[in-house]
Amino acid sequence: MYELSFWIGVLGTVAFAVTAVLAVAPKSIDLFGVSVLATITAIGGGTLRDVILDVPVFWTIDVSYIWIALGATVVAFYAKSLFTLKWINKSMLYLDAAGIAFFSIQAVGKVWNLGFGLPIAPVMLGVMTAIGGGLVRDVLTGRENLLMSKELYAIPVLIGCVLYAFVLEYFPEFRAVGSICSVIFIFVARTLAIEKNLTVPAWLISNGGRGN
Amino acid sequence: MYELSFWIGVLGTVAFAVTAVLAVAPKSIDLFGVSVLATITAIGGGTLRDVILDVPVFWTIDVSYIWIALGATVVAFYAKSLFTLKWINKSMLYLDAAGIAFFSIQAVGKVWNLGFGLPIAPVMLGVMTAIGGGLVRDVLTGRENLLMSKELYAIPVLIGCVLYAFVLEYFPEFRAVGSICSVIFIFVARTLAIEKNLTVPAWLISNGGRGN
Amino acid sequence: MYELSFWIGVLGTVAFAVTAVLAVAPKSIDLFGVSVLATITAIGGGTLRDVILDVPVFWTIDVSYIWIALGATVVAFYAKSLFTLKWINKSMLYLDAAGIAFFSIQAVGKVWNLGFGLPIAPVMLGVMTAIGGGLVRDVLTGRENLLMSKELYAIPVLIGCVLYAFVLEYFPEFRAVGSICSVIFIFVARTLAIEKNLTVPAWLISNGGRGN
Repeated sequence: MYELSFWIGVLGTVAFAVTAVLAVAPKSIDLFGVSVLATITAIGGGTLRDVILDVPVFWTIDVSYIWIALGATVVAFYAKSLFTLKWINKSMLYLDAAGIAFFSIQAVGKVWNLGFGLPIAPVMLGVMTAIGGGLVRDVLTGRENLLMSKELYAIPVLIGCVLYAFVLEYFPEFRAVGSICSVIFIFVARTLAIEKNLTVPAWLISNGGRGN
Repeated sequence: MYELSFWIGVLGTVAFAVTAVLAVAPKSIDLFGVSVLATITAIGGGTLRDVILDVPVFWTIDVSYIWIALGATVVAFYAKSLFTLKWINKSMLYLDAAGIAFFSIQAVGKVWNLGFGLPIAPVMLGVMTAIGGGLVRDVLTGRENLLMSKELYAIPVLIGCVLYAFVLEYFPEFRAVGSICSVIFIFVARTLAIEKNLTVPAWLISNGGRGN
Repeated sequence: MYELSFWIGVLGTVAFAVTAVLAVAPKSIDLFGVSVLATITAIGGGTLRDVILDVPVFWTIDVSYIWIALGATVVAFYAKSLFTLKWINKSMLYLDAAGIAFFSIQAVGKVWNLGFGLPIAPVMLGVMTAIGGGLVRDVLTGRENLLMSKELYAIPVLIGCVLYAFVLEYFPEFRAVGSICSVIFIFVARTLAIEKNLTVPAWLISNGGRGN
């Protein structure tokens, strides 16, 4: 189980770094800037979470996540043409979906174990872990961030985190199965959104989806 | 007294969340994004303050502030037409003025009690508590933030915080009355600025107010 | 030695604040906004570092850095015409180069002493200390930040930090001389970049330097 967690974490980190490189590549940024942005994307959300929790930042305990993020960045930087191949690009989107599913639910569990601001803070920090790094990246590169986008990205994460918090509150004996179901829910909802180009429904949009 | 503090805090939180919803509403953002932005506006400044102070983040001790912010957000999101009614809109601006007055002076007192970087850090963190959340919101939505605006918003807060720090340093026996006077000063200066459309005087502007 | 460190720190802080004032001056910002932005530029990177390290923020132990930043800001604000004089402007760029060299290497040493995420975290936080404040300033003012720029600014800092980390890991007995050489390396590389208008080489740029 630990082994599996580790490898999902590695794959998620690779996906976060690679999708970051592809996101900022059109901007004519040097390898240093790309590495900073990809690392922030990969570890920024968890760093914010740990700073707010006032616990040691996760990557100081195991720095391998940083090496993995940097390695993936350098490969993606010089092999961009590879990552724009359709099937590799799609694999990265799927790995990214697995990453947000895994990291957010893992974070909900971590915050819940600390008894930190139950029951709402675990959900907030779970979502922040998954999307916080990407938000900072987009702010630093002047890209439109996902809060302003109609793409269905964060809402599946939110629903999955609420689902897991619900299990932890009312059915703590089903903790393990609850975490697995929540991860699967987020992953499936997100891949469906990718495959079917699903967007946020109009009744959830502030001006009724009439555009900007 | 505690009761009064609590209710002013609640009203300030509601005002921060509602003004955030109105600020970002023209941008075609979904309810998830609006909730994130309104919550950041309402609790972001105090969160930054507590992280820098290295004390438990205030909303983990009492999560009701988050529920209040979220509730006000949902109501404002679906009842925007209500909040653009002139008198309700103006009430919200007044509540916002009460919020920045109350939260900044409360923060000065908190930082002063901790003996943290006296006498300048309490003033800095007092101002940050009042305006930090709004700055992050504006960065995430690509809006011009208040540092770039000529509206008289942060300067009354700064003066009020300096006033209160002055009382705490030289007349600690008048602490209670000093805090009340500082809150009233900020509130009155800010409402005057709203009523009279006061702007920052030209000699305080970097290019003499000749515009961008 | 301590005296020298203190005065280099003071000069670096002055340079960070003054270059920040000059950077944001064209934007028609009031003195309050300029002071916030200059202070963030001068102490923001070190604040982020200390928050991630979970140690007391450096300016709470000695608040003189804040007074120095504020004083330099006010002087630069009202004497901008002075600082656009060619030789004074160039002096400020050189002081800024001394500042990033000194603060980054000092940070590598601080993080290394704490045994925090060796060997990669000291390098990351060293670079962050030097450039973090400027990044936040540029985000708040809507300026293009240095990650998006081809100016040779952060890469010398990175190389110097790697150099110093290498010495700390393999030749800890040469710690003192290693720190001095690393500071000199960064300063010289940065001043060369200023004098010769050096830019990042094309093979380090994501689209081969073909522009935006």
